[in-house]
Amino acid sequence: MTQQITLYTAEVEIALHEVNAKYTRYEIDIRNKPDWFTAEVNPVGQVPALTYGGPEVPPNQPSSESAKLRESIILLEFVADLFPETNMLPPDPILRAKARYFMDVFKTKVVTSWNGYFRWGEAAQSLFTALEGLQALLPPTGFVAGEFSIADVASVLFLVRMWLMLEHELLLFDAKEDEAKETIKALRQRHFERLERYTHDVMERPSFKGTFNRDALISVYKQWSADLRADKLQREKP
Amino acid sequence: MTQQITLYTAEVEIALHEVNAKYTRYEIDIRNKPDWFTAEVNPVGQVPALTYGGPEVPPNQPSSESAKLRESIILLEFVADLFPETNMLPPDPILRAKARYFMDVFKTKVVTSWNGYFRWGEAAQSLFTALEGLQALLPPTGFVAGEFSIADVASVLFLVRMWLMLEHELLLFDAKEDEAKETIKALRQRHFERLERYTHDVMERPSFKGTFNRDALISVYKQWSADLRADKLQREKP
Ligand SMILES: N[C@@H](CCC(=O)N[C@@H](CS)C(=O)NCC(=O)O)C(=O)O
Ligand SMILES: N[C@@H](CCC(=O)N[C@@H](CS)C(=O)NCC(=O)O)C(=O)O
Repeated sequence: MTQQITLYTAEVEIALHEVNAKYTRYEIDIRNKPDWFTAEVNPVGQVPALTYGGPEVPPNQPSSESAKLRESIILLEFVADLFPETNMLPPDPILRAKARYFMDVFKTKVVTSWNGYFRWGEAAQSLFTALEGLQALLPPTGFVAGEFSIADVASVLFLVRMWLMLEHELLLFDAKEDEAKETIKALRQRHFERLERYTHDVMERPSFKGTFNRDALISVYKQWSADLRADKLQREKP
Repeated sequence: MTQQITLYTAEVEIALHEVNAKYTRYEIDIRNKPDWFTAEVNPVGQVPALTYGGPEVPPNQPSSESAKLRESIILLEFVADLFPETNMLPPDPILRAKARYFMDVFKTKVVTSWNGYFRWGEAAQSLFTALEGLQALLPPTGFVAGEFSIADVASVLFLVRMWLMLEHELLLFDAKEDEAKETIKALRQRHFERLERYTHDVMERPSFKGTFNRDALISVYKQWSADLRADKLQREKP
């Protein structure tokens, strides 16, 4: 029998929803992190984080007896491992490798070049290349590894945010605002139809609909833009 | 029944050895990559790469029918998935997450900061911090996740190279040679006893002994140093 699961923020929730897990969700305001979170859940201070097992406790009084896990892709693999019968990774080793490769490209190429452009002032070209590379990994229709898997969960919130940003011209900040508008225009013209349709397919999952709060996301996002403008977010490349 | 496996270079071999797989190994000279490798095995042009399935063919005539896989950690997961009964990842989901976290820290922190220092001229401090972080993930004795696992395979060749480098003062290049000697001295003094003992334990595995060629490694390593000196290796941060 699975034990208690507490999830601190994040898209991992979609996976927990897919497998019908019982879990407690707790929102961490990363601009104002509670001390207990860094001291007792994740010393790195990042979300997502997850505790597993130990006694049932309120999320803000984590037990020393639970396992403390972090890194979104590792949490997703953990959910797939805890509920193997739900096939959140397909049983076929080749398809599993395909799903993992997609997550790896997403994490190491797409997220990195996105931050590179929008936070650290790097050239937009590597973002275009990364998104084209990600799109090229998608089969002509459907999900990354055939059936819906954690690979689809891994990127969806990012992709949803990206289309929202394109739609609302969010995340424009500082002196580079005009240049960013140009980039958004270029992104729109670059034929990411397949990626857009894919995002749409994932958004149709009940697990997405059941956990997604569009208004909350837009407001987090506006806050992020404001923080970037006001230089309150870390703008140094770590 | 598992199908044909061809491995192009790399430590993944230790995992194949552990699970007693039948496989063909083919060495790619990455300084002089054959065209067929990039065209038909790995468009990114990197090793390790692996083909799985399809007809039995010579490694330099890969079949279009085999699956083409890349990224060392994904290859290691693939081996664990192909031979689940060998427990190259432990069955317990928490231990699996622990093994994966170790591989993630190794890849994103240790390798990155090592390249940062030795190739891209960044400060040595982040390398010390990364190695301390990696060491802190080790249990007091034994392997990363209890029994020997792919997490141990993932880092061993890197660690072996590091001790070799410390021993032989390899990888000293360009104007920064004196500074690099200082770094090596500092590394020696920084109490990586646990990491050193751990490396030693992994080196005792028959799978390591059966695949490791110390002289070949030293010579590759000397070549790498020479290439760095002669600026033949990519020194730009990708
Ligand atoms: N590699 C990590 C990245 C996590 C991450 O960047 N989290 C951000 C929010 S999306 C965070 O917690 N930032 C707060 C901080 O770093 O102080 C993962 O995939 O889980
Ligand atoms: N992230 C990749 C890195 C692979 C990598 O850097 N391979 C190097 C050799 S260790 C390589 O093939 N370099 C040749 C090149 O990039 O042209 C992995 O873990 O497999």
